[in-house]
Amino acid sequence: MIDAPRVGVLPSGARDSITDVGGVTVGHHTIADGSIQTGVTVVRPHTGDARRYPVPAAAVVINGFGKTTGLMQLNELGVLESPITLTNTFAVGTMYTAMVRDAVARDPQIGRSAPTLNPIVAECNDGWLNDLQTFAVTEEHYGLAMKSASVTFAQGAVGAGRGMSCFGLKGGIGSASRRVRIGPETLSVGVLVLANFGRLPQLILCGVPVGRTLAGVAEEAPLRDRGSIIVVLGTDASLDHRQLRRLATRASAGIARTGSSFGHGSGDIAIAFASRPSYAIDGTAHTSSDVMNDIALDPLFDATAEATEQAIVNGLFAAEPVRGYADHERQAIRERLPDWRRLLPSA
Amino acid sequence: MIDAPRVGVLPSGARDSITDVGGVTVGHHTIADGSIQTGVTVVRPHTGDARRYPVPAAAVVINGFGKTTGLMQLNELGVLESPITLTNTFAVGTMYTAMVRDAVARDPQIGRSAPTLNPIVAECNDGWLNDLQTFAVTEEHYGLAMKSASVTFAQGAVGAGRGMSCFGLKGGIGSASRRVRIGPETLSVGVLVLANFGRLPQLILCGVPVGRTLAGVAEEAPLRDRGSIIVVLGTDASLDHRQLRRLATRASAGIARTGSSFGHGSGDIAIAFASRPSYAIDGTAHTSSDVMNDIALDPLFDATAEATEQAIVNGLFAAEPVRGYADHERQAIRERLPDWRRLLPSA
Amino acid sequence: MIDAPRVGVLPSGARDSITDVGGVTVGHHTIADGSIQTGVTVVRPHTGDARRYPVPAAAVVINGFGKTTGLMQLNELGVLESPITLTNTFAVGTMYTAMVRDAVARDPQIGRSAPTLNPIVAECNDGWLNDLQTFAVTEEHYGLAMKSASVTFAQGAVGAGRGMSCFGLKGGIGSASRRVRIGPETLSVGVLVLANFGRLPQLILCGVPVGRTLAGVAEEAPLRDRGSIIVVLGTDASLDHRQLRRLATRASAGIARTGSSFGHGSGDIAIAFASRPSYAIDGTAHTSSDVMNDIALDPLFDATAEATEQAIVNGLFAAEPVRGYADHERQAIRERLPDWRRLLPSA
Amino acid sequence: MIDAPRVGVLPSGARDSITDVGGVTVGHHTIADGSIQTGVTVVRPHTGDARRYPVPAAAVVINGFGKTTGLMQLNELGVLESPITLTNTFAVGTMYTAMVRDAVARDPQIGRSAPTLNPIVAECNDGWLNDLQTFAVTEEHYGLAMKSASVTFAQGAVGAGRGMSCFGLKGGIGSASRRVRIGPETLSVGVLVLANFGRLPQLILCGVPVGRTLAGVAEEAPLRDRGSIIVVLGTDASLDHRQLRRLATRASAGIARTGSSFGHGSGDIAIAFASRPSYAIDGTAHTSSDVMNDIALDPLFDATAEATEQAIVNGLFAAEPVRGYADHERQAIRERLPDWRRLLPSA
Repeated sequence: MIDAPRVGVLPSGARDSITDVGGVTVGHHTIADGSIQTGVTVVRPHTGDARRYPVPAAAVVINGFGKTTGLMQLNELGVLESPITLTNTFAVGTMYTAMVRDAVARDPQIGRSAPTLNPIVAECNDGWLNDLQTFAVTEEHYGLAMKSASVTFAQGAVGAGRGMSCFGLKGGIGSASRRVRIGPETLSVGVLVLANFGRLPQLILCGVPVGRTLAGVAEEAPLRDRGSIIVVLGTDASLDHRQLRRLATRASAGIARTGSSFGHGSGDIAIAFASRPSYAIDGTAHTSSDVMNDIALDPLFDATAEATEQAIVNGLFAAEPVRGYADHERQAIRERLPDWRRLLPSA
Repeated sequence: MIDAPRVGVLPSGARDSITDVGGVTVGHHTIADGSIQTGVTVVRPHTGDARRYPVPAAAVVINGFGKTTGLMQLNELGVLESPITLTNTFAVGTMYTAMVRDAVARDPQIGRSAPTLNPIVAECNDGWLNDLQTFAVTEEHYGLAMKSASVTFAQGAVGAGRGMSCFGLKGGIGSASRRVRIGPETLSVGVLVLANFGRLPQLILCGVPVGRTLAGVAEEAPLRDRGSIIVVLGTDASLDHRQLRRLATRASAGIARTGSSFGHGSGDIAIAFASRPSYAIDGTAHTSSDVMNDIALDPLFDATAEATEQAIVNGLFAAEPVRGYADHERQAIRERLPDWRRLLPSA
Repeated sequence: MIDAPRVGVLPSGARDSITDVGGVTVGHHTIADGSIQTGVTVVRPHTGDARRYPVPAAAVVINGFGKTTGLMQLNELGVLESPITLTNTFAVGTMYTAMVRDAVARDPQIGRSAPTLNPIVAECNDGWLNDLQTFAVTEEHYGLAMKSASVTFAQGAVGAGRGMSCFGLKGGIGSASRRVRIGPETLSVGVLVLANFGRLPQLILCGVPVGRTLAGVAEEAPLRDRGSIIVVLGTDASLDHRQLRRLATRASAGIARTGSSFGHGSGDIAIAFASRPSYAIDGTAHTSSDVMNDIALDPLFDATAEATEQAIVNGLFAAEPVRGYADHERQAIRERLPDWRRLLPSA
Repeated sequence: MIDAPRVGVLPSGARDSITDVGGVTVGHHTIADGSIQTGVTVVRPHTGDARRYPVPAAAVVINGFGKTTGLMQLNELGVLESPITLTNTFAVGTMYTAMVRDAVARDPQIGRSAPTLNPIVAECNDGWLNDLQTFAVTEEHYGLAMKSASVTFAQGAVGAGRGMSCFGLKGGIGSASRRVRIGPETLSVGVLVLANFGRLPQLILCGVPVGRTLAGVAEEAPLRDRGSIIVVLGTDASLDHRQLRRLATRASAGIARTGSSFGHGSGDIAIAFASRPSYAIDGTAHTSSDVMNDIALDPLFDATAEATEQAIVNGLFAAEPVRGYADHERQAIRERLPDWRRLLPSA
């Protein structure tokens, strides 16, 4: 677990990570080489082939200033049929192609007798620390990230998070989970964020507006809010598309509590999936599914808000400082707020 | 101004109320009689006839467990052409009829040569304190609320807020405003909420999770989150429908910071309008409008989040305790948290 | 069955009506008295109490110039929990109240320990033939329509359709059904429309633009397209909310083929439901459901387009001429197009 | 003009093409080489740099089984800031990258001090005639298509349309326009479609269900409806984002009248833009715009429906037969329906 302030009241899973949701794995490929600071992160909904065994899914756009691909079909059919790939804005096309090629390699009927793949590629703009114009991410990097996918994975300045900034500090990949009891069951909501949003004066940690104080120091970097945050939500609860859309909507509560008001230039997007496949692609016409009653969803909504806030906080506290393109630098919050245990309630 | 904790960093307008937006007025009719504790509140976008001089508007549904009427046409045409009427859930039909009758009285061509009215009626369920089954709100109460509309108006347990509960305490009507400078202009965002949402343990005031402590005391009322919150946003900025939709989306940040994660049974809805009429209904085919560039919207987004949070807080602190149906009672937060100045940062 | 031109290629059910979907019934209350020509129509998804046994449902707004209530919650929760009540624009509030009162009468816990009702009231503007300003529809008329609900029901100038106009001719209530085979099953899609849209020159019957010819004759009534069409879709297929949203989207194809391009002032709305209850309101947390695979939906999409077009045509051909408010009159298409069998292909 | 059946009643512009809308140009790059039958088509909203001078725009998803990129940001900001690039499903990523590289070449601040580009890439699956797995479309092809952009351009089996099928026949690129008078102005709606949808038995031409007859002959190709249709709409009317969304919605009426009921596997998408730039990217905070009153939009809605239907018909009649991958072949409708002048009304 990340050594970071603790958000909310709900218990987290064993790893406080999206991989506390059974079957979910995460892989990175990180590129850190002078003015190139970028990478690729993949979230796999289960260890099988997601195209053959799609999972129920839904996506919600909080602020649509972003270039994520695949959400239209994901919401029409209500399923996720690929890993969710995170990368920088300029690499979206390359990842799309890599994912299609990979699918073809595994099923040579794709685009022939079988339907094409709907690849989900989400992005943030890491152009402050990374020289985007080098187009450093290549198709091979998708395969490398996939190969590294595991239930344990690094957070902070790694993978797609390598060059990301959050509240004017070093941001990147963060993850968390929360567990709730509903009737006889214990269910988990896991979150992974690619956090690249916010201006320093806005930053709130555990309710404390620490950003106002920190920002008193003259800022070396522009205060623009041109980032984005991608929130990936997984759950082992039996939810259908509509319910997952409701779950994804609650990610905004977690983001808001860190101080963001969803800036104009920020692509704020939440993608939720249930980790259990809903059907096999070559299956029969009918699917028998066991779906929760909406009246029982409140604990999952609370868990989503808390886990999203915690994932952002974990990402900040996991991040090491990075210097990159044009000698731009982002400090780690650990450096800027060494006495966070004293400043924050009960932390 | 309400004597209440102060949210955020932006300055408020002279009244810290939605009526700081020029032209906006608010009226109440309150019914407080034993087991009947309910009422009507109207927000008028300007002092003219909104049907003849509609204003640009947009509505956003955060959680759609609610019965608000009129949002479909408001979003299709991008205009508000009536006051926004707030009341209890059972009175929606009665208010709809009252508003149509009132429009007919002012323009006898309505439903003949002139189009019909699109009345906006939003509601929350006050059934804990109010005996809904008496259907106590009548058509006349709409006229009484309209007659009382003014730039000064009461908050708390008044009008539609009379019987509402918020975080297990007495809720109701709250209002606030924030001012921002964009280029040479000073612009205002004003908010009025009908707050009837949240469970006590969730309550966060100025970042401090006071609800957890308060809820330690055994709760006499059920912890269900079956309320709702209606957020009415006005602004004097020159925004079109799409931009007002973006503004309304930011209301969720303000709600989230008070501790809500948008409960299943809560109808959480934001309606935003610009106070300047966009055209006259009997006007010519073209409208010349001066619209802000989206790149300048961030300060308005921050103002929306802050004013929404402040309006909820103001509503709580303005509310007096109310006893009503079945001897149910809601305490005022002032009673439960008399030492709030000490507990909250810089308050 | 209505003696009318036959649309498309798919077979219809025994009644060519929405009541070919097992369990669905329809009731009318018609008011025809001089300048008052209006009424109420109810569609019941099954013969039980829809609030206790909600059915999966979804609504799609094709053009949102309309005042239909209840669609926000219907789409949030994915269920229909009331009959669908159709009436004139001014009577929406009255029907809302009538439906709430009726629910309270059947379950005195509503608004107390039980949630409130989400009544679905859809409307069209019958102000050309009906004196809207008399507010002739009263709460009692809802009960009368409900009492008359049956698998057999009249079409044309009856119920809510009494005062409606369609393509400048007499419109109103129309219904149709189509049956398709999917794997081993025979499934039905039934449609009921409240048709009050279109200008005469646009009218297309079975592909033939008969309106252009008919409209050559000088028109007595204004050519405005200020009507609306409400399409109610029922099916016995096992579809969830998302799939019913996809089904409802196909209603637009049927409307378009009658010549409409969804006029500015026309509230064009489709509401789809599956006739089998999805759960009991007082049931357990989980629901086991058997849902179709989307890949099998195409025949149902074709059936929806055809049945919608046929329902509009049936409504036109069932309608008798009506004279009403201000001596306005709408002719029946039978009078205007007596030789339709000769003019239309294979009819 | 294409020698094809004439749809509807409105007059077309001089070219009956999307380039009748002043400033709009279209370019193709076609690849026809044995089993590779594919290409790229670009629609430029004006002859300037769309990123520097964005135009008002909106997109509507009729059926979301498709991989089009960029629509999320287009709808959030209400502008189109790139050409609209059409290609095959596997080439979406490559076109995305090509468009970003091209933007960087023209403005080296992109991804640095200037925002990134939001490229619009729409696709259909041409895998029946084209060997998708060769990934034959390369980044250079975008530049070639852009270079060829002109007010005159070929239709049918060209550009992105090279390998497309429509109603089991050869489909591809089609275009049309319609002119209407609104007050003192003559305004145009122009349409370009990438048509790859429909099963032969569904085909309707000018209201006549010719597909049923044609399909009587045993079909050599599968009757699946796994195509898609991309509808690009341009207009010289002064419309804002919301109004363009309303316009785009009417494309579905044109598609429906050719016999489609928007098949499950068909990505049916409409993107509408106004050809006049709404502002300069480096402009001031405010924009003065002259926007039409919605009440005047009906003629533009009719024009959209007619021009969309005509563009599909033009694409079919312009198409030459193509033989490609695995010796699959699509016949031209001219071959299959040589006597169309006799079969269709007034053609």
